[in-house]
Amino acid sequence: MNKKSSNTMALAPNTSNKRETVCIFGTGDFGRALGHKMIQSGYSVVYGSRSTQISNLIPKDAEVLGHAEAAQKAAIIIIAIQRQHYNFLTPLAEVLHGKVLVDISNNLKLKQYPESNAEHLAQLLPGSKVVKAFNTVSAWALQSGTLDASRQVFVCGDDVEAKQMVMNIVRALGLTPVDKGSLLAAQEVENYPLQLFPMWKFPIFLSLGLTAFFFFYCVALDIIYTYIYENNNFSFFIAITIPNRVCPVMALILLALVYLPGIFAAIIQLYRGTKYRRFPDWLDKWMLCRKQLGLIALAFASLHVVFTLVTPMRSFARWRTGKGIISQVLNNKTEPLDHTNAWLSDSYLALGILGFFLFVLLGITSLPSVSNNVNWREFRFVQSKLGYLALILCTAHTLVYGGKWFLSPSAYKWYLPNIYILSLIVPCAVLVVKFVLIFPCIDKPLTQIRQGWERNPKYSK
Amino acid sequence: MNKKSSNTMALAPNTSNKRETVCIFGTGDFGRALGHKMIQSGYSVVYGSRSTQISNLIPKDAEVLGHAEAAQKAAIIIIAIQRQHYNFLTPLAEVLHGKVLVDISNNLKLKQYPESNAEHLAQLLPGSKVVKAFNTVSAWALQSGTLDASRQVFVCGDDVEAKQMVMNIVRALGLTPVDKGSLLAAQEVENYPLQLFPMWKFPIFLSLGLTAFFFFYCVALDIIYTYIYENNNFSFFIAITIPNRVCPVMALILLALVYLPGIFAAIIQLYRGTKYRRFPDWLDKWMLCRKQLGLIALAFASLHVVFTLVTPMRSFARWRTGKGIISQVLNNKTEPLDHTNAWLSDSYLALGILGFFLFVLLGITSLPSVSNNVNWREFRFVQSKLGYLALILCTAHTLVYGGKWFLSPSAYKWYLPNIYILSLIVPCAVLVVKFVLIFPCIDKPLTQIRQGWERNPKYSK
Amino acid sequence: MNKKSSNTMALAPNTSNKRETVCIFGTGDFGRALGHKMIQSGYSVVYGSRSTQISNLIPKDAEVLGHAEAAQKAAIIIIAIQRQHYNFLTPLAEVLHGKVLVDISNNLKLKQYPESNAEHLAQLLPGSKVVKAFNTVSAWALQSGTLDASRQVFVCGDDVEAKQMVMNIVRALGLTPVDKGSLLAAQEVENYPLQLFPMWKFPIFLSLGLTAFFFFYCVALDIIYTYIYENNNFSFFIAITIPNRVCPVMALILLALVYLPGIFAAIIQLYRGTKYRRFPDWLDKWMLCRKQLGLIALAFASLHVVFTLVTPMRSFARWRTGKGIISQVLNNKTEPLDHTNAWLSDSYLALGILGFFLFVLLGITSLPSVSNNVNWREFRFVQSKLGYLALILCTAHTLVYGGKWFLSPSAYKWYLPNIYILSLIVPCAVLVVKFVLIFPCIDKPLTQIRQGWERNPKYSK
Repeated sequence: MNKKSSNTMALAPNTSNKRETVCIFGTGDFGRALGHKMIQSGYSVVYGSRSTQISNLIPKDAEVLGHAEAAQKAAIIIIAIQRQHYNFLTPLAEVLHGKVLVDISNNLKLKQYPESNAEHLAQLLPGSKVVKAFNTVSAWALQSGTLDASRQVFVCGDDVEAKQMVMNIVRALGLTPVDKGSLLAAQEVENYPLQLFPMWKFPIFLSLGLTAFFFFYCVALDIIYTYIYENNNFSFFIAITIPNRVCPVMALILLALVYLPGIFAAIIQLYRGTKYRRFPDWLDKWMLCRKQLGLIALAFASLHVVFTLVTPMRSFARWRTGKGIISQVLNNKTEPLDHTNAWLSDSYLALGILGFFLFVLLGITSLPSVSNNVNWREFRFVQSKLGYLALILCTAHTLVYGGKWFLSPSAYKWYLPNIYILSLIVPCAVLVVKFVLIFPCIDKPLTQIRQGWERNPKYSK
Repeated sequence: MNKKSSNTMALAPNTSNKRETVCIFGTGDFGRALGHKMIQSGYSVVYGSRSTQISNLIPKDAEVLGHAEAAQKAAIIIIAIQRQHYNFLTPLAEVLHGKVLVDISNNLKLKQYPESNAEHLAQLLPGSKVVKAFNTVSAWALQSGTLDASRQVFVCGDDVEAKQMVMNIVRALGLTPVDKGSLLAAQEVENYPLQLFPMWKFPIFLSLGLTAFFFFYCVALDIIYTYIYENNNFSFFIAITIPNRVCPVMALILLALVYLPGIFAAIIQLYRGTKYRRFPDWLDKWMLCRKQLGLIALAFASLHVVFTLVTPMRSFARWRTGKGIISQVLNNKTEPLDHTNAWLSDSYLALGILGFFLFVLLGITSLPSVSNNVNWREFRFVQSKLGYLALILCTAHTLVYGGKWFLSPSAYKWYLPNIYILSLIVPCAVLVVKFVLIFPCIDKPLTQIRQGWERNPKYSK
Repeated sequence: MNKKSSNTMALAPNTSNKRETVCIFGTGDFGRALGHKMIQSGYSVVYGSRSTQISNLIPKDAEVLGHAEAAQKAAIIIIAIQRQHYNFLTPLAEVLHGKVLVDISNNLKLKQYPESNAEHLAQLLPGSKVVKAFNTVSAWALQSGTLDASRQVFVCGDDVEAKQMVMNIVRALGLTPVDKGSLLAAQEVENYPLQLFPMWKFPIFLSLGLTAFFFFYCVALDIIYTYIYENNNFSFFIAITIPNRVCPVMALILLALVYLPGIFAAIIQLYRGTKYRRFPDWLDKWMLCRKQLGLIALAFASLHVVFTLVTPMRSFARWRTGKGIISQVLNNKTEPLDHTNAWLSDSYLALGILGFFLFVLLGITSLPSVSNNVNWREFRFVQSKLGYLALILCTAHTLVYGGKWFLSPSAYKWYLPNIYILSLIVPCAVLVVKFVLIFPCIDKPLTQIRQGWERNPKYSK
């Protein structure tokens, strides 16, 4: 007991102190798990159940009574039953009058019912104080004590005191209550545990699609073409060479796609002469997933960096280096340092490093705890100024990489451009339009529009 | 004054405004530091002290009176005296009736007293409203204003209004109050500042022990063996070569140890046919430190990555490369590209990169601010699905690294296997058992058990 | 509607539910944006305006009335007008009596007015309950729904219930209210959005200055000197070689500057014999920006790592490697492995890797969400113990890098030392003084002083 860790302690604070009695309606899995936990934290628990014969699944320190009797013993009643059985509570309305009812229910899918379960409960029992809580916690985690995940419990309800009572229980169980306001927020709270990265879906599918396209494009040009026309089998390019061509291309395109909707928005506002009309739906959605697009771009850029840095460890690279040196020796000549090449290779690497550095900075500032510590002006500075600088550096990195071969016909296999050329289209377009937009003659009206001015007030009717 | 920074501002918000009077009992170090700070933040401070002769240590804007007189001047009294002197407060019970008493005391070691200091105070003075606060703040940090660390002040107490008053003072001093609920939480709050990474102790000692073992194992095989039998002095391997053998081995084993307790838990549940019995104590503890094990594994993996990437900068590696090329030249033959080697080296590197990438993702999602922003379903997806994928990739990376030499007898010095072979035991075992566990015939009963079903209800009695 | 994402949901929770009526005084940009958002979130909005003729800029579901009429319709009135027009509210004092007035105003620069706008409003209308809120949110972000930045809304006010009402509105709009205490905090809240990284200014300018100095120093020694005396054009060193000399130097110096003020503070306290006198102003400021100095040092160190790791990819490095091997071949001799060099290069790299590793650990623990989860003792352990260890490792890394050439005269071009020698001055000084300070005969009085003891009590008068 002496070596209790902070974690265990937080989960089972002190069993010596006796707290008040809490009633739980329903002896299902979550009701039992919650009861176990509450008894551990010093609460007396009384279950309300149809059959009062004591089941051996129920924690042995808990009492089991009929619903009405159990409810009379406590000021707080946790409703651990499913929404479709809420109707059986209506006959108990008198007993439950003035009591705090904690709705912990979840639905199986989004939009299953027109109103939230907690609001439904509040309508059935208008004399009780309904509080929504605990639905975001997993029964399994509660029981096993392995709460590595979020310890936040969203709590909402119309009665401030009832909410405080429930938040005290939440804290006593070692969890962190988060006040989400009135019971109107219950719908949002009930939808929360049903989501699986909703904002990430579109960016991830887009990246997967583009990645697949570029991957097969490269396989065709670098492996199949070489095999057919040069009779070289470079199939092992699949492991590193081609991923390291696709990753930077994806990173650059996705980074440009982060800034493209802002460009569209500016053009639409300039055209309409007002900011008071909604953007088209696709643009709204696009703007909302910019952060996700940027983070995926950062992931691709990081992979590109590591793939590049392992180059000297590759068997193929070592063989190629050796071959180059040996051919110099056998020809009995030492090549002098090519200054143009030295400049190109060094500046291409330096541009890439600086671009990646800014990119990582952007990623760090998008961490929730960091972005909560910067104000709006600082956030705009980082995400807009530094973001565009990163885009400029990365585009320049790609341009210098292309270097001399850019337009040489020999680089076009099957008359198709190399993918780094394809990757330059979107970022160059973004940078050119952005460059036009910061001209004073265009920037001034845009700034006015964004401050609320309207070119043609009738338009907004 | 015009260039006041956000930090200074937060620490000494505005000295122009006058706030209410606060009384401090005790003129020790923390009492003085707190008084200084409060005066800076606009409060009037009156000290209650046995000797009312003004000490020059006390902030000069503060008044010093006898305890009873001082207490009458303020609604809030901060008790900056040690627990063993609390008894002298009992004669003052009448004066302190209805006042807010702030207990700021800390103990010297965990479990020093049966009940918390704040609860002890509340028992001594049942007519006062005791609030626990400020014990997590260091006097030194308070005074020097260098609060780079957490600005959170845990506050708990039974009286909501008293707690609000104390939280307002906390905010006025530029700190962030965190409501920890009723006074029952005082014990946890008092234990908090005494801890030094309690959850990290076991994982760190385990890693240090394993690291030492593998390090000396490698020294024996790679340096001593080579010195004795091949008469080569490779003692400089201690700096990079051997650490770079130990790090990946540690990373792989620790990552497997993150998933091993889950496997044990599943087997125990299947065997018992119920989830309602507690796991053995060692398993509980193990499950609670999985996050720490995973993060240490990530640290080892990161070191492995950097150690590997600096290879081309090593004097030894450059010498070896040169030697290889020169021997080819002197033999007057150019070796063709070995396609098998190219495939092996590239896929081994690619597997490692992808495994490390997923590993870093897992690390990022375990940052508190990120894990607070994902729900239970999302957390499980990342930590379970992606975690196993990372384990598979890293195990495959090690298997391919072994490649052809795996079972060749020449690789066994002193009949001992290379350490990467040892490192494969735990992860392979975890992956094989996990593979068995996801078979429908085993997964189905396990899922039922975890949803609360019992095979043999009598067992749980 | 079925695919509503968490983000959109949070921003426009549920339009089906009707909430209470809110009045907005002023139809400027922010007033309109807030009104739009509130209507979307289910509130009825009534505008109070001088001219009640309906402007088409105002959300079409909102009502527009005269100020007095509008105020009577709601319990909460949002004052979306500028401070200089607050006077016109005084005739409405009777109507506004008992109402909650939400001050959302911002100033154009810090310290524009002696007291905060919200306190000014409270003085003008003593019968109303003034709450400061929403001033940290951008109208543009509110309207476009692209709240990637902080969703925190600072709320402060003297009336707890009024504050609760405003916080409920904040939550209903999908934002996170942060209670900043009483209205005295309004000044801080109003200053917050005007800041642009105030704590970062000095560290950034210092780094830029030092970087420029070292950059030109290196250009002189490595490019100009070589060009003049050796007739070699190494101008391409500007891209990678020289940045990679400046970055580690900057990282080491800035890391030492993090620990230097602590050394000064200890010496000052030892000299004065007390901790109860303020440090000089420059030292206070320096101590407050240590975290920022450390993070900039980490940025330089990271750049140094990446710049170093790309070395094998550089055209110049490949050329130099080839040249070395070819010269060996042409001289027909194979150099044996130089063990001293192998030791030096490996230990130099290993020291650097471990130092950087600890450095990154320090960076991670300074993330707000991580530092909030460690107590004061743990934070001190990491930042002080591990920090000094990192400084020792990085200094040793630089010393070993210098190695044999350290004092060889040929390394001094134009009698100037190489910059890595310059970079060693501050860290070595810090480490030597720190080493002296931990001697028991000095550490003991220092510890006593920091615990509140005074050598010469009269001094502090």
